[in-house]
Amino acid sequence: MAMTTATRTKNSTAVTRVDTEWLGRYLLGTWADVRLKARDLAALPELQRVEGQSVAEHRATVFGQLKILVEHRGVLRAFPKSLGGDDDHGGNIAGFEELVTADPSLQIKSGVQWGLFGAAVLHLGTERHHETLLPDIMSLAVPGAFAMTETGHGSDVASIGTTATYDEETAEFVIDTPFRGAWKDYLGNGAQHGTAAVLFAQLITRGTNHGVHAFYVPLRDESGTFLPGVGGDDDGLKGGLNGIDNGRLHFTAVRIPRTNLLNRYGDVAPDGGYTSSIASPGRRFFTMLGTLVQGRVSLDGASVAAAKIALAIAVRYGNERRQFNAASDIDEEVLLDYRLHQHRLMPLLATTYAASFAHEQLLTKFDGVFSGAHDTDADRQDLETLAAALKPLSTWHALDTLQEAREACGGAGFLAENRLTGLRADLDVYATFEGDNHVLLQLVAKRLLTDYARRFKAADVGSLARYAVGQAAGMTVNGTGLRSLAQNVSDLGSTARQVGHLRDEATQRELLAGRVEAMVADVAGRLRPAAKAAKAEGARLFNENQVAVIEAARAHAELLQWEAFTEALTGIADDDTRKVLTWLRDLFGLGLIHKHLAWYLINGRLSPKRASSVEPYIDRLVARLRSHAQDLVDSFGYRPEHIRAAIATGAEAARQSEARDYYAAQAASGTAPAAEKSPPRA
Amino acid sequence: MAMTTATRTKNSTAVTRVDTEWLGRYLLGTWADVRLKARDLAALPELQRVEGQSVAEHRATVFGQLKILVEHRGVLRAFPKSLGGDDDHGGNIAGFEELVTADPSLQIKSGVQWGLFGAAVLHLGTERHHETLLPDIMSLAVPGAFAMTETGHGSDVASIGTTATYDEETAEFVIDTPFRGAWKDYLGNGAQHGTAAVLFAQLITRGTNHGVHAFYVPLRDESGTFLPGVGGDDDGLKGGLNGIDNGRLHFTAVRIPRTNLLNRYGDVAPDGGYTSSIASPGRRFFTMLGTLVQGRVSLDGASVAAAKIALAIAVRYGNERRQFNAASDIDEEVLLDYRLHQHRLMPLLATTYAASFAHEQLLTKFDGVFSGAHDTDADRQDLETLAAALKPLSTWHALDTLQEAREACGGAGFLAENRLTGLRADLDVYATFEGDNHVLLQLVAKRLLTDYARRFKAADVGSLARYAVGQAAGMTVNGTGLRSLAQNVSDLGSTARQVGHLRDEATQRELLAGRVEAMVADVAGRLRPAAKAAKAEGARLFNENQVAVIEAARAHAELLQWEAFTEALTGIADDDTRKVLTWLRDLFGLGLIHKHLAWYLINGRLSPKRASSVEPYIDRLVARLRSHAQDLVDSFGYRPEHIRAAIATGAEAARQSEARDYYAAQAASGTAPAAEKSPPRA
Repeated sequence: MAMTTATRTKNSTAVTRVDTEWLGRYLLGTWADVRLKARDLAALPELQRVEGQSVAEHRATVFGQLKILVEHRGVLRAFPKSLGGDDDHGGNIAGFEELVTADPSLQIKSGVQWGLFGAAVLHLGTERHHETLLPDIMSLAVPGAFAMTETGHGSDVASIGTTATYDEETAEFVIDTPFRGAWKDYLGNGAQHGTAAVLFAQLITRGTNHGVHAFYVPLRDESGTFLPGVGGDDDGLKGGLNGIDNGRLHFTAVRIPRTNLLNRYGDVAPDGGYTSSIASPGRRFFTMLGTLVQGRVSLDGASVAAAKIALAIAVRYGNERRQFNAASDIDEEVLLDYRLHQHRLMPLLATTYAASFAHEQLLTKFDGVFSGAHDTDADRQDLETLAAALKPLSTWHALDTLQEAREACGGAGFLAENRLTGLRADLDVYATFEGDNHVLLQLVAKRLLTDYARRFKAADVGSLARYAVGQAAGMTVNGTGLRSLAQNVSDLGSTARQVGHLRDEATQRELLAGRVEAMVADVAGRLRPAAKAAKAEGARLFNENQVAVIEAARAHAELLQWEAFTEALTGIADDDTRKVLTWLRDLFGLGLIHKHLAWYLINGRLSPKRASSVEPYIDRLVARLRSHAQDLVDSFGYRPEHIRAAIATGAEAARQSEARDYYAAQAASGTAPAAEKSPPRA
Repeated sequence: MAMTTATRTKNSTAVTRVDTEWLGRYLLGTWADVRLKARDLAALPELQRVEGQSVAEHRATVFGQLKILVEHRGVLRAFPKSLGGDDDHGGNIAGFEELVTADPSLQIKSGVQWGLFGAAVLHLGTERHHETLLPDIMSLAVPGAFAMTETGHGSDVASIGTTATYDEETAEFVIDTPFRGAWKDYLGNGAQHGTAAVLFAQLITRGTNHGVHAFYVPLRDESGTFLPGVGGDDDGLKGGLNGIDNGRLHFTAVRIPRTNLLNRYGDVAPDGGYTSSIASPGRRFFTMLGTLVQGRVSLDGASVAAAKIALAIAVRYGNERRQFNAASDIDEEVLLDYRLHQHRLMPLLATTYAASFAHEQLLTKFDGVFSGAHDTDADRQDLETLAAALKPLSTWHALDTLQEAREACGGAGFLAENRLTGLRADLDVYATFEGDNHVLLQLVAKRLLTDYARRFKAADVGSLARYAVGQAAGMTVNGTGLRSLAQNVSDLGSTARQVGHLRDEATQRELLAGRVEAMVADVAGRLRPAAKAAKAEGARLFNENQVAVIEAARAHAELLQWEAFTEALTGIADDDTRKVLTWLRDLFGLGLIHKHLAWYLINGRLSPKRASSVEPYIDRLVARLRSHAQDLVDSFGYRPEHIRAAIATGAEAARQSEARDYYAAQAASGTAPAAEKSPPRA
């Protein structure tokens, strides 16, 4: 058991200690063994980022690394056992996420190959595709692109312009790019390595457009030359992830066999007749896209991992670096002794723990659905909502954490050798790909509003009106959707005032869940006229309330993180560890309440007196957690081979001792120059 | 007069228009002609960043560009007329700032050469140094480093370890680096190009350390080889600014002539006697460092310029890019029609205007001091405070704006060809160099607390106690220090409630200034025991209040920006332009009030009812300003050669038209495929 640092609490002479070894294992979660194996892989120098490579070198390196991953069977867990995989969906993502510590380009490039290109064949194709296509995809014999996004359409996939028109005479689909905006764009493996693609296009047969479907389309021959009718462009240098060859593609009358349609959810007979197991084109579209949720799941996990690395660097450095000697003449303070420095890093640490526990829930949900163990419509909806809620928060959180860590390490943080700027540059795009964060939050809001409407299907107008002014019945909605509180919302204001203890779990829950509920009710009330309005008028109304809609979704996502953290506390047996983690959860919860304090005050949920106690209480928590900071980042379990920052190796502590020893020796020998005396004050 | 877009206000059928040409000129400020000339320079392709260069290529390119700047006399305005300069300090900085649009590496590398290395010789040296050293510095015959920061000490310059010990026998200073932490670090021109340095070291003579002084020290011979006793290291790849060769230097018994001491504020006679015109070592140190304030001034201005470029890109793209068709079946919305998109960009636009006007005040103050026109102690203090207040806000604002613009442009924003990621990577370090932002804010807080204490020098204990509970006399402090309100703070709560109009300038001022005053009073009250406490206890007390101290300083800096924006409004003659800019100022002011709304509520400065009107009013302002967004970024006056983003060239609009034309032609010809019909609802 590692016991390195400690706090003494006021009422006890006993020392509180985090059991870092146990906590480390706990954080690894359900797929601990897979994660440890993946971390061993990520610790291999040949899989790690070489800073300063040119784009061409970096691309070549990462492509070579994919082959190493294949050799280590590090990336094929999700594929069928019959083809050499493990049918292990959760484990697959868990392992994949850990690759971010080696190089985010490696993570995303392998994600393109096996998580998007391969997974699309797996989930949207049928047996004939699995047998003929998957082996070469798995082995990387066929590197491929996932050709969905177009220059003109990213998040709005339903409106893409590429067409696949069925030609009955030849039993082929003809792929066309009708205008520049319909070029496929930002495709990993698109600029260089991809010899095939899963291409999304409007399926047209017998004069009818059946909406977006996926097709398997060869792109290049073995020499890398485009096949006839295919053309493209290199996206060139990017803000990060330059180990990936993102590019653009366009198609002119490119013919593929009818059977290249990935036909799990929709098929075209030789005579051009269209059939689908899902009657509604809208539902079919969302079902097909739903199979791709794993991209969001894995970005959520990779972002948490990157935030952990950032804090491992900044906390270690903050515990070694000294600057200014305010309190004594001998030693300067280490940075983390400064209250401001604590306030910069500790809340980020709390959020990282929240995001980590929330991700474990998401991954479990994902595995349940994809393994078939829990695969109802409700499960799938919950998974969609959870992924759409958590991915925005964790990707933004990773960027915020990397940036704060960078600044907290000063000029050293800006050097590539300390990794913070490189990771931040790479993770930047996580906020907008695999679903733009704001668009995802709108999805969450849609779910919340649907839940809300459902709750009142049978309710009379009177109760709805009461709701609109801030009262609610005690009906509970499970899953990841809208929460309902045990008691009436109308009681809440006084409840919160009476409870008196902001550190009380129930109080935090009431405040956070009550806010979501009230915001959704408020927005729903304002949107009610939209239901009966003309389309343009409804859109106008929705647009006017868009900011409130997003804010409600964000509040809900924060609640989900808080709930995950809180639930995780129940699994901690060791009293000390649970105590420290409870402080950390409180810091997270009170941080959220503090962020939205004006809302609580305006809506009478907190009195000014109670509200004014939030900041001092946060301050106390931060100070109390300071001595556990190193344990809390050590528990992440990343080794020096994963962290790889020159300033987080003990080098700074060594420099500090050397300097201290120099001055001590000088003082002892009597050779130290005297300080110039200040003149007497006038 | 350019009149491109317009709003109709509720009570008028007249159209409100921004006079972009006039506003553009107004924004250029006092040194408009210099800025325009510098923009012409920055528009030259040979001075612009070539994306994708290796570090070695980029360094060589930028070094070559410095020579072009010399040829164009673009960077020598601050030097004496006798040596071929203009003695124009404000103009020099104005021109220098504009270079950021060509390449931030070029801006900072020229800043190192002429703004730090050259300026240190100018301001810390005396005539003999000017005559012998400046000509070669100005011409770039001697590229030099500014060797102040050490690996072990950044912001705490007084504690650097490098020593310069005077040897009476040879009349030389002996430069030594006593330990690894005392290596000079992060020095531009340090890794490669610098053949000399202005080096900061502890001056020791006759056994006494007289504190940090600056010395002129040759580093390399003409072949680039280190001179005897000098060694160093390359800082390698950085998060940005890779056109600059940052490096580390160390010195072992390096001897320089006595006359290489830059002796304006302190000198050593041949016999080793030390003399200084400033008796107090502390004051002497701050006077020497004070001459270097121009670095902060110029970073403030360059950050404003970068934010302008970011918004010029994102607003243009937001006005052309279409996505989702919520409101009609024909056309998708342009992004900027979405309320959320407006809320993401318009407040940043308002802050950019505030920062721009505030920078103009800072530059004017700087010019007054450095030209000698207004160069009292109070002026210098005001300049220090203003620079320390504005530089943190503007550098962080630039990063926030570049990031939001990047995300608002989606995947396209991540491509290097659209410049947002590159600019952000380069500007990242602006937040921590030339004074770490948090350290600067502490400087501001120190000034505020000093002003506060001075105010009560003659006051009795009773009045001080009253102050501590939130009441204040009506004494006004001028300059950039602590504000006092015209009436008693105790009236404020009710005043704000009564005034009723948050858009009222006086109300905004009262709320913003009142908050600063109350926060400073609060912190001062909490720090009072520190004055009589032992050093360690005083430090502990200060540390416990550090977050509040920084927050007060930040509030003060925000107030300074708001005041600058408000003062700028008085210079706008055109009614329409003033009206739109007033909305923008209101958006800025209410944005600040919204950010701190909980404080206003807790402290009774705003009633819950009044507070709840802030968000809706911001919403109205954002909507009202939307149609002026393009004019407001066009007024920045940056040309395509400065903006250089592929998505801000009209290319997106052309793609959108092409797509629309395609669908229109298809519809007209009757060849459009029919949409699959949804099945009847069950």
